[in-house]
Amino acid sequence: MTSEEIHHKIEQMGRHARQAAYKIAQLDEQAKNRILLAMAAGLRAATDSILEANARDLAAGEEKGLTKAMLDRLRLDPARIDAIAGGIEQVASLPDPVGAVIDSWERPNGMRLEQVRVPIGVIGIIFESRPNVTSDAAVLCFKSGNATILRGGSEAIHSNRAIATALQQSGAAAGLPDHAIQLIPFTDRESVAALAGMDKWLDLIIPRGGRGLIETVVSLARMPVIKHYDGICHTYLDAAADPQMAVAITVDAKTQKPGVCNALETLLVHHEVAATLLPGVAASLQQKGVELRGDETTRTILRGGVGAATDEDWVTEYLDLTLSIRVVDSLDQAVEHINTFGSHHSDCIVTADEAAAERFLREVDSGCVFHNVSTRFSDGEEFGFGAEIGISTDKLHARGPMGLKELTSYQYRIRGDGQVKG
Amino acid sequence: MTSEEIHHKIEQMGRHARQAAYKIAQLDEQAKNRILLAMAAGLRAATDSILEANARDLAAGEEKGLTKAMLDRLRLDPARIDAIAGGIEQVASLPDPVGAVIDSWERPNGMRLEQVRVPIGVIGIIFESRPNVTSDAAVLCFKSGNATILRGGSEAIHSNRAIATALQQSGAAAGLPDHAIQLIPFTDRESVAALAGMDKWLDLIIPRGGRGLIETVVSLARMPVIKHYDGICHTYLDAAADPQMAVAITVDAKTQKPGVCNALETLLVHHEVAATLLPGVAASLQQKGVELRGDETTRTILRGGVGAATDEDWVTEYLDLTLSIRVVDSLDQAVEHINTFGSHHSDCIVTADEAAAERFLREVDSGCVFHNVSTRFSDGEEFGFGAEIGISTDKLHARGPMGLKELTSYQYRIRGDGQVKG
Repeated sequence: MTSEEIHHKIEQMGRHARQAAYKIAQLDEQAKNRILLAMAAGLRAATDSILEANARDLAAGEEKGLTKAMLDRLRLDPARIDAIAGGIEQVASLPDPVGAVIDSWERPNGMRLEQVRVPIGVIGIIFESRPNVTSDAAVLCFKSGNATILRGGSEAIHSNRAIATALQQSGAAAGLPDHAIQLIPFTDRESVAALAGMDKWLDLIIPRGGRGLIETVVSLARMPVIKHYDGICHTYLDAAADPQMAVAITVDAKTQKPGVCNALETLLVHHEVAATLLPGVAASLQQKGVELRGDETTRTILRGGVGAATDEDWVTEYLDLTLSIRVVDSLDQAVEHINTFGSHHSDCIVTADEAAAERFLREVDSGCVFHNVSTRFSDGEEFGFGAEIGISTDKLHARGPMGLKELTSYQYRIRGDGQVKG
Repeated sequence: MTSEEIHHKIEQMGRHARQAAYKIAQLDEQAKNRILLAMAAGLRAATDSILEANARDLAAGEEKGLTKAMLDRLRLDPARIDAIAGGIEQVASLPDPVGAVIDSWERPNGMRLEQVRVPIGVIGIIFESRPNVTSDAAVLCFKSGNATILRGGSEAIHSNRAIATALQQSGAAAGLPDHAIQLIPFTDRESVAALAGMDKWLDLIIPRGGRGLIETVVSLARMPVIKHYDGICHTYLDAAADPQMAVAITVDAKTQKPGVCNALETLLVHHEVAATLLPGVAASLQQKGVELRGDETTRTILRGGVGAATDEDWVTEYLDLTLSIRVVDSLDQAVEHINTFGSHHSDCIVTADEAAAERFLREVDSGCVFHNVSTRFSDGEEFGFGAEIGISTDKLHARGPMGLKELTSYQYRIRGDGQVKG
């Protein structure tokens, strides 16, 4: 397709999405849940055709020489499809955020104001290889009253198309408005630019993927982008840290699932307790196979077996069984380290000193700050949101885990009896 | 200055602003108010030097051939400076939004979550000729705990510098952190690009000015932009509109202050009442000097004196004593017209029919929707916010009038007693 054809096609999808969004916004909770349950059933019923499409993607991926990890992310099987359908049913069970009155008050002139939660409108989702995002993102956006335009990666295009078709067809039979969920059926790079430039029809764009993808979208987008950048998470063992808790939280945050954004990457330890705490913490980590990289004080305390941490380590998201360690002079230095080198995602203090904890929570500039809790709890499900579309590292609109509520906007509704200003 | 020097200088200002932001975030309400009152006094004390600087801008403006209206926007006098200082005192009197607990709950594992309002961080303000914005924007951002980097237009550079210097010096003596309020001291166009590209240090950018300025910032910015686009506001006279209220609200919304974004631009009238309502409404408007442009039905009903409205009229923000009028078949058509041609700012239905009113409020996709209230009340002061930084036409983060609360973000603070996931 020519660039012009791509822009024309996506413009048309945008226009259709806006019309759909107005219709979705008027559906009540029951209607939306009925449609969601129909889509879950439709997805299960389409298992064979989805697996067939997925087999084509896998064959093409092998031919292209994708790594084993990439092929695994791409691979669907009946259990994974069933899990995707189960995800839709879970979203159906969550409370509808639309229509909730956030605030209401009356003014001296008698006019009554209501701030009411409404859908955002049309949301663009640009994602990489995992085909489950087609369903996960679309249904979260739909439940919160929004239309979606999805743009997946080329590796999963057949799987994505099959999933989108199953959702659209089974949804339509249950009352899903036309064009409520649209997948861009081609993967030309130009389609990202076309989508990101279309601020007339698109209210928000959410890139789901690596730093490169997010950076590209940020530089092209004319509409708001909600970014899910790295998690360079810290745990700070304060002078008053309970030794057992220090070990338990550090080991959990680092090793329970090292490949995710809320896993621990840098351990900070107050110098007064470094000599007593670090040996035990290090031994427990090394037992789990964690490679340690420490600053000079850390290496002196731990002697052999610990590599030297360079400045690069403080800004690295390992996503692996590697941990950098620094001994700090004070709470102030811990906070400064986190605010300087961290990614403002999730950080924890372990301490029995309430005053130190409160200062840490107040001064660390991150979306989620924890006192005596593993950073692995920085997660929409763990927060009780039921499901999440991601963890925002932005400060505007949504920060931290984003659930259904964060996929809505608001509107002021003002009622009166003829108030005029003149 | 070379482009490189500009980028270097602005990068330095950004880095300083981030440090200042962390300090401001820790100031309590009393400390911030003390600083604000000192700045108000300092601004009054600097009246002579500000007027001197303003005289230089005015002389340069006359030489450059600025229009009388532009020169008037630029002109300061002792009363205007006193009003700016009064504005600072008013902001000091408003409640501090920082630290408020938005929500709190406990999870089954015993961890306690708090969603707490925190400052955004560093806010960039790019504005055009009015020098009062230097103070107005900076103090609203400061009260909500943010550092600001201001970039004003070249016409007002001397006035802006004098105002910023007065605020900085009087503020510093009362405890204002260094670099809390910074004005870019030059007006090279490249400085806008430098600021808009600096997402490492700037969390938000707010352009205050015409469409051209906003478009430029939107296309350059890598960080969130809150936009204050046009107000193409509608009033819809429903079949059940009270005739007196129809006249009063229409005349108020159109004529009470026609040059502002919440003034009426298009009147929609239900066809069943067009023949009875329009003559009275039109006569009252024409008495106030309003030029009317109608669709065919309107022109037939009103006979002479009414020009023909073209498609261009439906998307025009006149900001003047001009009004376009269309007769519609139904509430549905009114909603469709507003959602298609409007700017999603502020729209009103006049009706005694509650069901029609509720449908209008729910279906019109605008930041503020009014029932039997003039759109002129779409305003932070009228809403009771005390002051506003503008009226957002965006849907993300802030929609409609933006007060102090909308200049904040939030953070999750999670407290526990050793919760681990594994």
